[in-house]
Amino acid sequence: MRDVAIIGIGQTPVGEHWEKSLRHLAHDAIMAAMRDASIEAAEALYVGNMLSGALNGQEHLGALIADFVGLRGIEAMKVEAACGSGAAAVRVGAMAIASGMHELVLVCGIEKMSDAIGNLTTGALATAADQEYEVSQGISFVGLNALLMRRYMHEYDVAKEAFAGFTVNAHRNGAHNPNAMFRSPVSEAAYARAGMIADPINLLDSSPVCDGAACLVLAPADRYRSRAKALILASAVAIDSLAIHDRRDPLVLDAAVISSQKAYAEARLTPANIQFFEAHDAFSIMSALSLEAAGFAPRGAGVRLAQDGEIAIGGHIPLSTMGGLKARGHPVGATGVYQIVEAVQQLTGQAGQNQVAGATIGMAQNIGGSGATVVTHILGAV
Amino acid sequence: MRDVAIIGIGQTPVGEHWEKSLRHLAHDAIMAAMRDASIEAAEALYVGNMLSGALNGQEHLGALIADFVGLRGIEAMKVEAACGSGAAAVRVGAMAIASGMHELVLVCGIEKMSDAIGNLTTGALATAADQEYEVSQGISFVGLNALLMRRYMHEYDVAKEAFAGFTVNAHRNGAHNPNAMFRSPVSEAAYARAGMIADPINLLDSSPVCDGAACLVLAPADRYRSRAKALILASAVAIDSLAIHDRRDPLVLDAAVISSQKAYAEARLTPANIQFFEAHDAFSIMSALSLEAAGFAPRGAGVRLAQDGEIAIGGHIPLSTMGGLKARGHPVGATGVYQIVEAVQQLTGQAGQNQVAGATIGMAQNIGGSGATVVTHILGAV
Repeated sequence: MRDVAIIGIGQTPVGEHWEKSLRHLAHDAIMAAMRDASIEAAEALYVGNMLSGALNGQEHLGALIADFVGLRGIEAMKVEAACGSGAAAVRVGAMAIASGMHELVLVCGIEKMSDAIGNLTTGALATAADQEYEVSQGISFVGLNALLMRRYMHEYDVAKEAFAGFTVNAHRNGAHNPNAMFRSPVSEAAYARAGMIADPINLLDSSPVCDGAACLVLAPADRYRSRAKALILASAVAIDSLAIHDRRDPLVLDAAVISSQKAYAEARLTPANIQFFEAHDAFSIMSALSLEAAGFAPRGAGVRLAQDGEIAIGGHIPLSTMGGLKARGHPVGATGVYQIVEAVQQLTGQAGQNQVAGATIGMAQNIGGSGATVVTHILGAV
Repeated sequence: MRDVAIIGIGQTPVGEHWEKSLRHLAHDAIMAAMRDASIEAAEALYVGNMLSGALNGQEHLGALIADFVGLRGIEAMKVEAACGSGAAAVRVGAMAIASGMHELVLVCGIEKMSDAIGNLTTGALATAADQEYEVSQGISFVGLNALLMRRYMHEYDVAKEAFAGFTVNAHRNGAHNPNAMFRSPVSEAAYARAGMIADPINLLDSSPVCDGAACLVLAPADRYRSRAKALILASAVAIDSLAIHDRRDPLVLDAAVISSQKAYAEARLTPANIQFFEAHDAFSIMSALSLEAAGFAPRGAGVRLAQDGEIAIGGHIPLSTMGGLKARGHPVGATGVYQIVEAVQQLTGQAGQNQVAGATIGMAQNIGGSGATVVTHILGAV
């Protein structure tokens, strides 16, 4: 099995791109990554996307985008694992390189959510949850996360205000990321005042609906060592039941536990070796649960890391260093690729004011649904 | 790169399964394949599906199905390439084994189209075509194929009746396949009488809307040689523009040409070595174009193979040996897996009255859209 290197990264700013269609957005990220890698062709494109069928009336993104960027004839397909689609596509790209089937692979995460009318988006996002046993009962995706947050507050006797630190951290980091959707800091007072969406989740607990595309160029590490920007030290996927009521314990993200452990074993590392963590902070509660499942905090103590400032850039485990889903934005099928692009920025010293000093090992964890699919990548500096 | 073996196959009958939900249908195919392979666990599940978001309100099938068949904790995701989704998922499964990342992999193709209301299905199928440049102009997917068929008839001076042989052949083969949706033979006279859908495509040129699931168990050939039922000799994907008007030549399926040539090169074979061809006969015109693109007939001569009886079981290049998309049925995201399951039936001498005598090498070609994604697999007997 060949080691996999990342030799190029590209991303569009995250936001509402009314002036660009889905294919144009993907084009911009892919062209940026190909320029970054100094390549003019690739053999395959794996597209991470969740909602194009529902929101853009367009499936078949693999061929659509590969053709649009001038790569007619190559291999292409779409990979979907709800909000974990981006990292799942990276996983497929890594297998294509590791297997020896390809030498240059593009992985593009893309989501275009702005153009949808009315509450199409809420319904489309709910297809990540169990249609027959959850959604048919009328619950939305934010509603499911609200149940988890309420349960966390109850079981561990945590006040809602305790979660403010995640939002404050994300917005502080996003302020220095030119590609972030939200670039203004948020105070704890603003968090306390934010309008409620699904009690106890308020507006500032929630990542935004937005558009964005990010792209990686993957290649075999042995052949491309001189051009490598980072190495994929581990790539691991694990699943749990979609329905929260079917879980062993709703407050333990078993898929994140298993996915993290697989990744640590593959990279021969422990949580102590991880210098920053790009978490899937779609909602604040997911940050707390992820930190616990990945081994950075004991059960019920994830939220304390945010209260104690341990998740800041200079802290024990810097979290969502470029703004995370909350402030950079969460174009769902693109998010997992953004996380890895940002990890590469950290590992190459290109994270600007958000730079984690001396970062050589980072972890990115992309979650589909409310924890049903978890994709963990550990990235290393060259 | 490790060679990949198929050690188990499973399929449900194709039809209208009103009594089973999507997850139950997938379950039945997966359990059958696991029993066939004598395994009780697997490390990964790749699901080929196109329409679950649109027709079943359910994305995230990887986790949903893996959990439902009792495999919580494994890797799982969905792969989509329009009607080529099934074979694209097989391609990903093959990479997972070839790379050494997994030892036992399930690939399940699943589509549940019956439950959709009204003309949701026609709209959903059109997401395989170019939304911005084709579908927005009001054309349906069958309409696009009708344009191709009309052009073929015009350019090569072929009468509509010349296509009857494809339908007659498919139904003759489907009659002996217990899993086929249509098990009654169809005459040329019936073809001539069939109601028009989109001139010149009539009802008997068209594959049906239906439900079905099929599954393969993949494993490394070296380690599982004694249990191997067939070997994947080649696996190749190529893309073309979604929009037909963007193609170099609308009557040449360039992606099928490239995908076939990649596959022949990988397997070190030529069309002369292929003993049967599971073609993507979603519409009769696709059979003709596929036979030409894959090298079995010169340009404009594909339809003659059907007229001359060369595509029958005892003919020069037996086509759609278990009924094909036309008679076995075309549950879109499942079709590519059905084709390979049926190829394994041929290669293991289990094709019953449809057995191609002494078959040791067969080819399956799954097409997404009207030729924009083409996935070719060449399978060999052990």
